[in-house]
Amino acid sequence: MADLLAGLGDAGGWSKRHLLGLEDLSAEEITLVLDKAEFFRKALDAGERRFPLLSGKTCCNMFFENSTRTRNSFALAARRLGADMVDFSAATSSLAKGETVIDTARNIEAMKVDVVITRHRTPGTPHLLAQNLHCSVINAGDGPHEHPTQGLLDIMTIRQRLGRVAGLTVAMVGDIAHSRTARSNIWGLKKLGAQVIVCGPSTLVSPRWQELGVEYSYSLDAILPRVDVLNLLRIQFERQYTRPFPSVREYALLYAMDSRRLARTKPEILILAPGPINRGVEVTPDVADGPQSAILDQVTNGVAVRMAVLWLLTTVKS
Amino acid sequence: MADLLAGLGDAGGWSKRHLLGLEDLSAEEITLVLDKAEFFRKALDAGERRFPLLSGKTCCNMFFENSTRTRNSFALAARRLGADMVDFSAATSSLAKGETVIDTARNIEAMKVDVVITRHRTPGTPHLLAQNLHCSVINAGDGPHEHPTQGLLDIMTIRQRLGRVAGLTVAMVGDIAHSRTARSNIWGLKKLGAQVIVCGPSTLVSPRWQELGVEYSYSLDAILPRVDVLNLLRIQFERQYTRPFPSVREYALLYAMDSRRLARTKPEILILAPGPINRGVEVTPDVADGPQSAILDQVTNGVAVRMAVLWLLTTVKS
Amino acid sequence: MADLLAGLGDAGGWSKRHLLGLEDLSAEEITLVLDKAEFFRKALDAGERRFPLLSGKTCCNMFFENSTRTRNSFALAARRLGADMVDFSAATSSLAKGETVIDTARNIEAMKVDVVITRHRTPGTPHLLAQNLHCSVINAGDGPHEHPTQGLLDIMTIRQRLGRVAGLTVAMVGDIAHSRTARSNIWGLKKLGAQVIVCGPSTLVSPRWQELGVEYSYSLDAILPRVDVLNLLRIQFERQYTRPFPSVREYALLYAMDSRRLARTKPEILILAPGPINRGVEVTPDVADGPQSAILDQVTNGVAVRMAVLWLLTTVKS
Repeated sequence: MADLLAGLGDAGGWSKRHLLGLEDLSAEEITLVLDKAEFFRKALDAGERRFPLLSGKTCCNMFFENSTRTRNSFALAARRLGADMVDFSAATSSLAKGETVIDTARNIEAMKVDVVITRHRTPGTPHLLAQNLHCSVINAGDGPHEHPTQGLLDIMTIRQRLGRVAGLTVAMVGDIAHSRTARSNIWGLKKLGAQVIVCGPSTLVSPRWQELGVEYSYSLDAILPRVDVLNLLRIQFERQYTRPFPSVREYALLYAMDSRRLARTKPEILILAPGPINRGVEVTPDVADGPQSAILDQVTNGVAVRMAVLWLLTTVKS
Repeated sequence: MADLLAGLGDAGGWSKRHLLGLEDLSAEEITLVLDKAEFFRKALDAGERRFPLLSGKTCCNMFFENSTRTRNSFALAARRLGADMVDFSAATSSLAKGETVIDTARNIEAMKVDVVITRHRTPGTPHLLAQNLHCSVINAGDGPHEHPTQGLLDIMTIRQRLGRVAGLTVAMVGDIAHSRTARSNIWGLKKLGAQVIVCGPSTLVSPRWQELGVEYSYSLDAILPRVDVLNLLRIQFERQYTRPFPSVREYALLYAMDSRRLARTKPEILILAPGPINRGVEVTPDVADGPQSAILDQVTNGVAVRMAVLWLLTTVKS
Repeated sequence: MADLLAGLGDAGGWSKRHLLGLEDLSAEEITLVLDKAEFFRKALDAGERRFPLLSGKTCCNMFFENSTRTRNSFALAARRLGADMVDFSAATSSLAKGETVIDTARNIEAMKVDVVITRHRTPGTPHLLAQNLHCSVINAGDGPHEHPTQGLLDIMTIRQRLGRVAGLTVAMVGDIAHSRTARSNIWGLKKLGAQVIVCGPSTLVSPRWQELGVEYSYSLDAILPRVDVLNLLRIQFERQYTRPFPSVREYALLYAMDSRRLARTKPEILILAPGPINRGVEVTPDVADGPQSAILDQVTNGVAVRMAVLWLLTTVKS
């Protein structure tokens, strides 16, 4: 065990108590998380499952939106680090009884909880909690704003597959307007020196995205030949009040990544997609399951990134 | 670890296999639980999280009413004692398939469960289970009847803050009629020598409460100057078929604990409230977050009380 | 601990990575599972709760149908073997977002999960997953097709109580048409040399069941004197589109096992019922709670069978 953990090294000067968004992190901090996550990924691949770094700590999922995979990815990460995990997620939780979200979180903290992992449809909720709690807060998605561990796992997968991030051109394709994944990726990728293009129908991509230092395009076919990474976002029908395009079939004709389009990309193109994927909408099965796709790698890296984040946040003295 | 647990002492002659209500406990038994809970509270404050007193035991939450915080408080208590925890709570559980509650509980027990923690909207359900199971049963709320661990944690908080219980005057304010918390507090406080006043609108407080040996009042302002503790109960709209007062605003005008009323109390007044609180209804934010409030202490004490109860019940030879 | 596990022996040449149905197992394989389950049952009865045979393994419940008891029986089995347990069960899971069941399962597997335990209303779903995953798959019920651990625990209970299976006559009574329990029992019992009769109203029992090598009957009274075991299936109203009999009272008159019918059976008759039971429908309380009933033994054996299955499947090198 001592041998196992020796490879992890120390926390490298990490000083943040919360992970609220990639906008707040420096390039050095992002790289530190990725390096630590790389350690956990390799150890997981080697069959290790028990890393007693958070023994005696308690982590808490407090999801106010339905989530199965992110919630369980955090739960697995916490348990593999030896933490106790408790789940306060529920649409039917005390909030329905008129309690404020700060009161709910303070109540949970009062049970001697060290890390609160939260998802809420209102942007800024994790920041509000961070200001009002003594324990660590992780943003697992605040409306369309940020989802930093998703950004980190995407960037980790790019670095793993292509060996670097700086100088790459990464296109985020699809439902940019409603995507916290897009925002977290943009902040992280820009800081590490990548170019970002946001691409999708004009109802979902606005020229104002240029203010974040990214390029925009309404045509996937136009940008295909010059991108190194395609990150295919899911159309989130559940977040939309009006239909942003005439039909799913029309969307797929213009934006689905299929073998015909794949033939026009650079040969080493990397295909990412934060699940769940809609096969035949944003990506066709042959591409999703092909050698350019790193979709399942993203999932495994997700556990590794969350282990790294949980460990780093809890190494900070409060 | 031996050193840590040395401070706990022995079970002091505890002989009960179930915790069904504070009506059933003697003053000595209540004091014993509070003393053990005090040990766990101090150890939790000192950063201890692992007390392997229930290793190899299995505890089970069997909640037939929605609950996030009580259910998780028990789950954390059980896990910190080293027990396995399993959760059979579900509105959609087998009961919906026509099974009796006794059969459901016997099935759970047959999986080799040592403690069943249960909440049910029908008063007496935990007592029915206690008669039909070999394992320990804890009442986590049976309709408007009793919620003994809530009563214990309230009384523990009073004793901690004010140094004693005997001789104090404690007012329970608000929705007395539907409150299991009120009933458990009344039984416990009376046994330990406190005076209790139940206070609220006449639709929620009846003169018949005098039969339990308590005083009643329709006016918070009238009793304010002479109480040592105010326990502000939540208006439980979900338990009421008809509106017991004309408006929430009218209720708040008459019963909300605010700074104006606080100025008329004894200076050392203690404010309790079993969460979730409705800010602006039974208590205003300045009072809820002020120095007289022990609302978050109650939550921490809740985990400690449940650890004490789980430990005591499982020390009894069956 | 070494002593404890010594009694378990080795995996006896077990070579299957999945448990999809009893149709796939040989008599020798079924007997091996029962023998190992017998070891766990005896150890559980002796108070043992920790068998660190799956340390560092992760098991996952992926139930797409509501289930409290089977899901928790597997969870308890996994935890008592020292495995981590994660639960992806949810009607509101990612499937609702358009993802295929194979993608959901592959995502879970990518989190480094060793065993996926699944229930789905579509027959063959576990088989589909087994073809597409590297980890082990356990069928916890696929529509009306198979529920192998239920079959195994029923047969284990018969062998325990009557000392043998071969040569016995076992009647499955009730809702045969919709019962995966009936199918798994039939495959298992036939392989071990028992005779099986399926019995119920003609709307729920078809002559075509003879193709599986079983006898059929519409009259419980006619077969009563010659059966050794009665397995009383629950009427699963939730699986039926049209009412298969005029009234519950009429069903009970013809098929409920009551004391009057009990008097006409062999004296050593064994009464089984996979819970939850409808008291007064398929069985009356005096019979359900009487000495011939092994209903609660089935539940305890369920945990033991699942421990045996989890251990055997994970001993196979992938």
